[in-house]
Amino acid sequence: MTDSEPGGGPILFYFDFSSPFAYLAANKINDVAKLYNREVDWRPTLLGAVFKLNGNKPLLEQPLKGEYARRDLARCARLMGLPMEMPESFPFLSVAAARAIWWLKGKDEALAQTVALALFNAAFQEAKAIDSAEAVLEIAAENGVDPEELKAALNDPEVKEKLKTEVDASIAAGVCGAPYFIVDGEPFWGADRIDHLEHWLSTGGW
Amino acid sequence: MTDSEPGGGPILFYFDFSSPFAYLAANKINDVAKLYNREVDWRPTLLGAVFKLNGNKPLLEQPLKGEYARRDLARCARLMGLPMEMPESFPFLSVAAARAIWWLKGKDEALAQTVALALFNAAFQEAKAIDSAEAVLEIAAENGVDPEELKAALNDPEVKEKLKTEVDASIAAGVCGAPYFIVDGEPFWGADRIDHLEHWLSTGGW
Repeated sequence: MTDSEPGGGPILFYFDFSSPFAYLAANKINDVAKLYNREVDWRPTLLGAVFKLNGNKPLLEQPLKGEYARRDLARCARLMGLPMEMPESFPFLSVAAARAIWWLKGKDEALAQTVALALFNAAFQEAKAIDSAEAVLEIAAENGVDPEELKAALNDPEVKEKLKTEVDASIAAGVCGAPYFIVDGEPFWGADRIDHLEHWLSTGGW
Repeated sequence: MTDSEPGGGPILFYFDFSSPFAYLAANKINDVAKLYNREVDWRPTLLGAVFKLNGNKPLLEQPLKGEYARRDLARCARLMGLPMEMPESFPFLSVAAARAIWWLKGKDEALAQTVALALFNAAFQEAKAIDSAEAVLEIAAENGVDPEELKAALNDPEVKEKLKTEVDASIAAGVCGAPYFIVDGEPFWGADRIDHLEHWLSTGGW
C-alpha cells in the first residue's frame, strides 16, 4: 500500500490531524477513490516540520490570510455538506493521534482509517480536544481498538521512531501542506484539488 | 465602480501583475461576470505589502510549496486552455504597470482592462519583462494609449500617491493574495475559487 504506480495504485493521502481542510478531505476522498476502483492509503504526518522549513505560520494564524481562510473553510464545509466546528484549542498537537494511526496501519489499514476519520470528526464536528493520549485512546476504544495495547504502543520507541521516519518521508515526497494527495506520481495539494484529482483519475491526466 | 452592493454591483478583482495565478484569472473573470450581467472592476495592487505583513515569501519561492505550485500552475493553465510561460526574471516589479492602470482607470475603465490583460499576456504568454516603465509604455501604446501622456503620468506624484492609497485600501479590504475577488461583500481568493464565485453568483450564496 505504499507505492503509487500508474494504472491502479492507491491514492496516497497525507494529512495532519490538526488541519481542518484535511478533515473535509478525509470525509470525501474514499468515496471519490471508490468511483475509480482505487484504494486510499491514509498517511498521517506532522506539518510543524514543513512550517519550520518554509518559515510559515499555520494558515489560520497568519495576518489577513487567517481571517480569509476561516471564512473560506466554513463556506467550503457548507458547500460539501459537512458540519464544521473548530476545537477550542487550535492548532493542537497531533502526535499521539498520528502515532496511533501508524501503529494501527501495521495491523489493519481499514481499522486505521475508521479510527482516523473518527478522530477528525471528533475534533472538527464535535470540537473535542484530541491532542492527548487519553483522548486518542478513548476514541480508538469506541471503534474497537484494545486500549491497553494502544496505550503501550503510544509509549513504544519503535512507534515513535516510525512516525519520525514517516514525517521525513512525507517531506522527501514533497508534502508541503494538508491535505496532500499523490495519485500515479501526480501531486495534488488541498481539499480544493480533489476535483482536479478526480478529473485526473477519469482522464488519465492532461 | 468602487462599491460592491448586493444584487448587481461589480465584481472587484484585485491582483498583482507579478502573480501567474492572477494572469489565469484575468483571462477568465470577465467571461464569468458576463454570464451574470456583472461588471468587473480591475484593481491592481502590490502584494509586497502583504508579504511584509504576514512574513511570507511569494509562493513560488517557498521551499516545498514553490516546487508544487509551479507544477500546479502549469496543470491549471492546461486545464483552463491557457498558454503559460514564466518570464525569465521572476518575481518582477509591477509598480509601473499598476500605476499605469490606475491612471487609465481614471480615464477609461474598458481601456484600462484591455491594457492590463495585454500586460498579463505579455508577461505570462510571451515571457516578456514588463517591470520597466519602457515596457509598460510600449504595450500600452500598442493598445492605443498615448505614450507621452502615460510617460508623464508614471512620473506624476499624484499617480504614485493613488497607487499607494489603493494598496493600503486593498489591505484594509482584506486582500491577502492574488487573484482576490469580492462579490456582494463576499471574498474569494485564488484562481481556483472562480468556480465558487460563479456558484455564489448563480445561487446568491450558501
